[in-house]
Amino acid sequence: MMKYVYLFSEGTKEMRNLLGGKGANLAEMKNMGLKVPDGFTVSTEACHRYYLDNEKINENLEKQIMDALKSLEHTSDKILGSIENPLLLSVRSGSPISMPGMMDTILNLGMNDEIAKNMAKKSGNTRFVYDSYRRLILMFADVVKGYDKEPFERLLELKKESKNITSDLDLTDEDMYDIAMGYKELYKKLSGNDFPEDPREQLLEAIKAVFKSWNNDRAKVYRKMNNISDNLGTAVNIQEMVYGNLSDNSLTGVAFSRNPSTGENKLYGEFLEKAQGEDIVSGVRTPKSIEAMERDYPNIYKELNDIAKILEKHYGDMQDMEFTVEEGKLYMLQTRNAKRTALASVKTAVSLVNENIITKEDAIMRVEPEELSRLLHPSFDEKVLNTLKPLTKGLPASPGAAIGKICFNKESVIETKEKTILVRTETSPEDIEGMKDAEGILTVRGGMTSHAAVVARGIGKCCISGANEIYVDEENKTITIGDKILHEGDIISLDGNTGNVYEGNIPLSEVNISEDFETFMNWANEFKKLGVRANADTKEDALAALKFGAEGIGLCRTEHMFFEEDKIFAVRKMIVADNVDDRDYALNELLPMQQKDFEELFMCMDGKTVTIRLIDPPLHEFLPKTKEELIKLSKSLNVSLDSLEEKVSSLKEFNPMMGHRGCRLSITYPEITMMQVTAIIQAAINVTKKGVKVNPEIMVPLIGDIKEYEYLEKIIKATAKNLISEADVNIDYKIGTMIEVPRSVILADEIAKKAEFFSFGTNDLTQMTYGFSRDDAGKFLSDYYEKGIFSNDPFKTIDVEGVGKLVEVGVTLAKRSNPNIHLGICGEHGGDEKSIEFFNRVGLDYVSCSPYRVPSAILASAKAAVKERNK
Amino acid sequence: MMKYVYLFSEGTKEMRNLLGGKGANLAEMKNMGLKVPDGFTVSTEACHRYYLDNEKINENLEKQIMDALKSLEHTSDKILGSIENPLLLSVRSGSPISMPGMMDTILNLGMNDEIAKNMAKKSGNTRFVYDSYRRLILMFADVVKGYDKEPFERLLELKKESKNITSDLDLTDEDMYDIAMGYKELYKKLSGNDFPEDPREQLLEAIKAVFKSWNNDRAKVYRKMNNISDNLGTAVNIQEMVYGNLSDNSLTGVAFSRNPSTGENKLYGEFLEKAQGEDIVSGVRTPKSIEAMERDYPNIYKELNDIAKILEKHYGDMQDMEFTVEEGKLYMLQTRNAKRTALASVKTAVSLVNENIITKEDAIMRVEPEELSRLLHPSFDEKVLNTLKPLTKGLPASPGAAIGKICFNKESVIETKEKTILVRTETSPEDIEGMKDAEGILTVRGGMTSHAAVVARGIGKCCISGANEIYVDEENKTITIGDKILHEGDIISLDGNTGNVYEGNIPLSEVNISEDFETFMNWANEFKKLGVRANADTKEDALAALKFGAEGIGLCRTEHMFFEEDKIFAVRKMIVADNVDDRDYALNELLPMQQKDFEELFMCMDGKTVTIRLIDPPLHEFLPKTKEELIKLSKSLNVSLDSLEEKVSSLKEFNPMMGHRGCRLSITYPEITMMQVTAIIQAAINVTKKGVKVNPEIMVPLIGDIKEYEYLEKIIKATAKNLISEADVNIDYKIGTMIEVPRSVILADEIAKKAEFFSFGTNDLTQMTYGFSRDDAGKFLSDYYEKGIFSNDPFKTIDVEGVGKLVEVGVTLAKRSNPNIHLGICGEHGGDEKSIEFFNRVGLDYVSCSPYRVPSAILASAKAAVKERNK
Repeated sequence: MMKYVYLFSEGTKEMRNLLGGKGANLAEMKNMGLKVPDGFTVSTEACHRYYLDNEKINENLEKQIMDALKSLEHTSDKILGSIENPLLLSVRSGSPISMPGMMDTILNLGMNDEIAKNMAKKSGNTRFVYDSYRRLILMFADVVKGYDKEPFERLLELKKESKNITSDLDLTDEDMYDIAMGYKELYKKLSGNDFPEDPREQLLEAIKAVFKSWNNDRAKVYRKMNNISDNLGTAVNIQEMVYGNLSDNSLTGVAFSRNPSTGENKLYGEFLEKAQGEDIVSGVRTPKSIEAMERDYPNIYKELNDIAKILEKHYGDMQDMEFTVEEGKLYMLQTRNAKRTALASVKTAVSLVNENIITKEDAIMRVEPEELSRLLHPSFDEKVLNTLKPLTKGLPASPGAAIGKICFNKESVIETKEKTILVRTETSPEDIEGMKDAEGILTVRGGMTSHAAVVARGIGKCCISGANEIYVDEENKTITIGDKILHEGDIISLDGNTGNVYEGNIPLSEVNISEDFETFMNWANEFKKLGVRANADTKEDALAALKFGAEGIGLCRTEHMFFEEDKIFAVRKMIVADNVDDRDYALNELLPMQQKDFEELFMCMDGKTVTIRLIDPPLHEFLPKTKEELIKLSKSLNVSLDSLEEKVSSLKEFNPMMGHRGCRLSITYPEITMMQVTAIIQAAINVTKKGVKVNPEIMVPLIGDIKEYEYLEKIIKATAKNLISEADVNIDYKIGTMIEVPRSVILADEIAKKAEFFSFGTNDLTQMTYGFSRDDAGKFLSDYYEKGIFSNDPFKTIDVEGVGKLVEVGVTLAKRSNPNIHLGICGEHGGDEKSIEFFNRVGLDYVSCSPYRVPSAILASAKAAVKERNK
Repeated sequence: MMKYVYLFSEGTKEMRNLLGGKGANLAEMKNMGLKVPDGFTVSTEACHRYYLDNEKINENLEKQIMDALKSLEHTSDKILGSIENPLLLSVRSGSPISMPGMMDTILNLGMNDEIAKNMAKKSGNTRFVYDSYRRLILMFADVVKGYDKEPFERLLELKKESKNITSDLDLTDEDMYDIAMGYKELYKKLSGNDFPEDPREQLLEAIKAVFKSWNNDRAKVYRKMNNISDNLGTAVNIQEMVYGNLSDNSLTGVAFSRNPSTGENKLYGEFLEKAQGEDIVSGVRTPKSIEAMERDYPNIYKELNDIAKILEKHYGDMQDMEFTVEEGKLYMLQTRNAKRTALASVKTAVSLVNENIITKEDAIMRVEPEELSRLLHPSFDEKVLNTLKPLTKGLPASPGAAIGKICFNKESVIETKEKTILVRTETSPEDIEGMKDAEGILTVRGGMTSHAAVVARGIGKCCISGANEIYVDEENKTITIGDKILHEGDIISLDGNTGNVYEGNIPLSEVNISEDFETFMNWANEFKKLGVRANADTKEDALAALKFGAEGIGLCRTEHMFFEEDKIFAVRKMIVADNVDDRDYALNELLPMQQKDFEELFMCMDGKTVTIRLIDPPLHEFLPKTKEELIKLSKSLNVSLDSLEEKVSSLKEFNPMMGHRGCRLSITYPEITMMQVTAIIQAAINVTKKGVKVNPEIMVPLIGDIKEYEYLEKIIKATAKNLISEADVNIDYKIGTMIEVPRSVILADEIAKKAEFFSFGTNDLTQMTYGFSRDDAGKFLSDYYEKGIFSNDPFKTIDVEGVGKLVEVGVTLAKRSNPNIHLGICGEHGGDEKSIEFFNRVGLDYVSCSPYRVPSAILASAKAAVKERNK
């Protein structure tokens, strides 16, 4: 018979898929001998069973739950439903992949009128008992029944108003009893039935509610956003209650074994005295920092700090823990690998290696490539920042810098086409879409572990939380800070590193790379096999590429140079030329400009490979779009506006992506090829003569047939040969091609006989293989995701089964006919971790991506190599 | 040592590649014992050697020529250069593939002053001798030296003027002598050297000149036009002269063993008395018909007729012969398989089988599929056509002949009750109704695979595309060709077989499908293995398909029905609908119309397979293009023109070919799928209830992923199941898919697990595999042909190496996972002979092409099967 329920003593941290992350780690901690309230986990398999049985708990499952309960009653020496010695339980969800705040929790389960009465009598803490009871009723009404919480909360508010008090803590025993009884009445009114007094009924209903919450709307949205499968399901953790709100000697908190923002090796976190865990998360009361605990509760602090070290060593990673102190006794309620900033990630990984806790390989596997690029994102210019006075200050909840127009809700964030800052009193899971679209998030309430903070760090968005000087008037769409009023659409700047909020637009500056970062990148470079180059079209790009560790330039798009102010005019003249002479005339204007660009690139790359692609996009992309530009061009060329307009319109294409572009342009206008090759080779000659090494590769785009390649190779070689023999210096250059139309894959063996290198152009290859263009696919891809036809964007992560298969075929054929061929890829996939893992596996030599993604790509390459080795 | 020169006694008709067509057949005739002036052939290998040696005749080659000459001197008992007994030669080109008139000939080679003088003295025919001598000088000057012939011919004219005569025949001995000497002087003036008196020098120069003529401009153009490889090279035939102009008893002529226009089994041809062969070709004198020979020279006629029969039997095909009679003796100078009309081709093939000369398989191999389709279209009266000069010329995009009044849009085509020609700059899907109603279509832009061409072939309409000398002024309703202006309503005639456009009305000669044609098609059907279906969207198409022998409908494009006047309005309402309800409302209007179409199709096809493709093209194709239509639609829908225009523009795509189309539409609007499936299945039910069998196949276009297929399969099955169980009749239908994006090929094994049939959509597959669209490729393909990068249009004949490779992979993968899968192709390649041979080879079950191409396709299929069997 299938086993659905596991005692904590039966679990390990490896059983995450079955027990969920929380359950597996609770079991692990229990078995490490740490103080964890005992309990058991109803597995994700049980969740599947529940759905297969049409949302019912079958007999077998119920029996296993009751058996586990019996065992828990035995170890805890308490009985669920006993009046004299009642066992009280927490029921919490826990899926294999963390979905913070997305699913439901019920605490204090097991209470009823009789039990509460006896507990109050025995403990003498009536207020605490009825506070717990009222919370149970509220959570049950909310989670199991789905009632609105607001009428319940109003009862509490009314009581406070009637007593003229503002803090819950000022409510008396009687007040709390009244409120609990009021909740019961309200529950009955809403449901038509009494609140269930049978704790076993409470338990089964609560378990069902947690299962059900797997499919609530916000959980579904979260999973879609985070690419989490809907099929995982959730486990349910049933655990004996401990109370952080029982007495003055009780508290609850969250702690990180290191600082999750900076990586500093010091316990970090916050706590609330006389509170339950949910009070921290909800952000209703502002918690104290963990430093205060060191001062006020030194013994507890020491114990917690020791446990953090033990856990960190055990898990080999920074831990994020929940704990509760009940009457001076510390209980661990959760531990997991901490979400952290990129900075902290790298610092921690390096530090753990230095502390001999993990190996370099482990360190590499600990850091996500995606995070690294965040490290490199610019922050505000210090100098400018020093001259400015912030409007206000909040908590630096997620680092980075963000500038944008104020928006008050997700709808306006989504509608506004410009950059936005989402400003909320506090955020809730419904805001997630808006948070994702905004540049940054600013909240009035909540701490470093509030919903806003956790989510923002997860998606790498700048966030300032708890900026409590701000008053948000959602109705009138204004925020007030002192006597300053800002309106929707006004621009503000958030400094996620300090928590400062500024008015207006602040210039950005580059982030300096830390020593730890360099150490880490050195390790990554040590392990990686697949090389990483950068896509760079200008000297500035090239400098960034070098700074971030690129081994060379894998793609220099010559046409990007054409768009520059000083060149575009000559380019236009070239395009509208009606004959070879006119075209040559315009090309002669362009030649010295393009040559100078290449000289700068070569100087800057100092002997590293520079792969230069010949002109690629359809010519009409360069043409004037406005009447003014057309008039200017027609005057300069001394042709009529009419005939120029006709020429421009004759260049329009039905399907520009499948039109007159790539090598097709170089073939119909060989004079363009000659100009470009002249610029490249002459630049190489000039730079060589200055004593600087050059290593140029000339790349022909969009080849589909060997004859296309041969035609252009001949022109390139002849042009280069002339220049080189005239200059009498030695220039080594290579000629190769992009492999980006399916036909070139099929004929890769033929083409590889001639080409010295291939660069797979997976953007175009994806377009042609699927038969849809990136620009047009938007019209149906969202439908495809919704209907479960696609699970992710093939332009972001390579489609291994289809496009990837073609890449594999291309590699195999190419190597068969030319074992020395050098193989790379350029395009969006070159910076994507999963894609890099694939490219590593099929045996490419390098990827090329944008300069800012180079460190991520290097790390992804290193991870791929480590994974491969560990197979 | 390589053998470069072959005596006629050493050759056979199989040596065509080496000896050229003429040389091989001369040798064959010689060895059959027919009277052929003896000689030898310098091979095509020698031609290659000549070019490899930088246009020189090397020592070895020269020696072989001189050895062969010695042998010829021996058999002819004459000596080249001998004054007493001179051997005179003809030097003629002859390549492996006939290129009539493209290359050069030199006759009377071997004469000089001394020899002429002695010949004149001995023969007493001075005029003849110097006429021959002058011709040699002229041909040598022209062919070897490349001088303009005009100054030479002027000398002859001047002489005639001075003597006041008009016919060459009236020139005296002295006149002719003077002219020959005048030519010699002129030659010396032009070249600075004497005319070479050494006959050996003449011979070598003449051979070189023939080799050189392989690469003259007109030969190169001819080869490009006819898809003949530049690498074949030409042979040179050196043969003893015979003279049709020697005496009254001499003549020269050409003859066909049967009538090449009708196939009638009777000698056919013409001759000139006292003339050389070139006089017939040049058309200076009007020849007599071969009937006159039967009367005037009955013995020669009988001998020639006997030889024709012998040759026909020997070659198993109709022969085209050249002959010369010298002083009553008949010599054969050439024979080859005759070019003939489609009608003659079929009649001859059938007749040769009936005469037991060839087998049925031979007959099938004798007829070109391309010819057959011509048989099914009307054509202009040849005799009238020969007297007319065309207005202009375009591409022969769809065969046939059409006469009608010029109309500039579909509305005027529809309004005009007389026959019309639709003249457009280019056509779009909206023009279809007009194209159907018009007699013929003439477009200014677009190639053989443009929209106009494809549609016209599909509906069997005569079409000329790319007539780019025409300027269409739609506003003023005129067309301008040079200085000629035609108005709406003026009559023009289109010859779809040649691409010629004529002014006015040309009489038609209607061709009836003959009994021979039917016999022939029965044989083809007997041999073929690969089935042939037709693309048919309407009842009319289906009737044509059946008439021409289609086994079923392989592609019914449901959207073509949508363009019809009564449906397009409902279609537009469906497209601009903003929600499912509005869309359903519009679909409900469409349903009965589409259902009726299917009922008609099923009735008409009477149990034969009908493959129906779900909606395919991007929706914007259906939308109104003119303001009037927009206003009409906005009124009917009661929405503002602005918002309608916005909707229409939101449907525009950057790359419609790679946009929201095919199954992507069916997925985003499943309600369209449901309507179409309902129409198909309900029609099948209704027709079944009438006692007529139905065999529908539902085809999903543009599948790239198995999940797309599964999603739609589910909808299709559910919709059909409901209807069928409600109706309580048994309907067998199949579901399958087009394989037309490269990704579907790669995943063909996956898809084949579900799909019951595949139809390769090689149009789209070609576009995606090459990465260029049919509509845009025109901009560079002509350059590609010119530069030798492509040798033919991959949209016409399948690209076996690239696209074909994908088809092969798809077939292999599909059969591996589903051995019962039925495989076909639809699209332009389905009617192309070479492509059909390929499809037969890779094991497809059927092709589908336009109804008018069905007979060609059947023949091509039969030929492919015969070839395969004979391998």
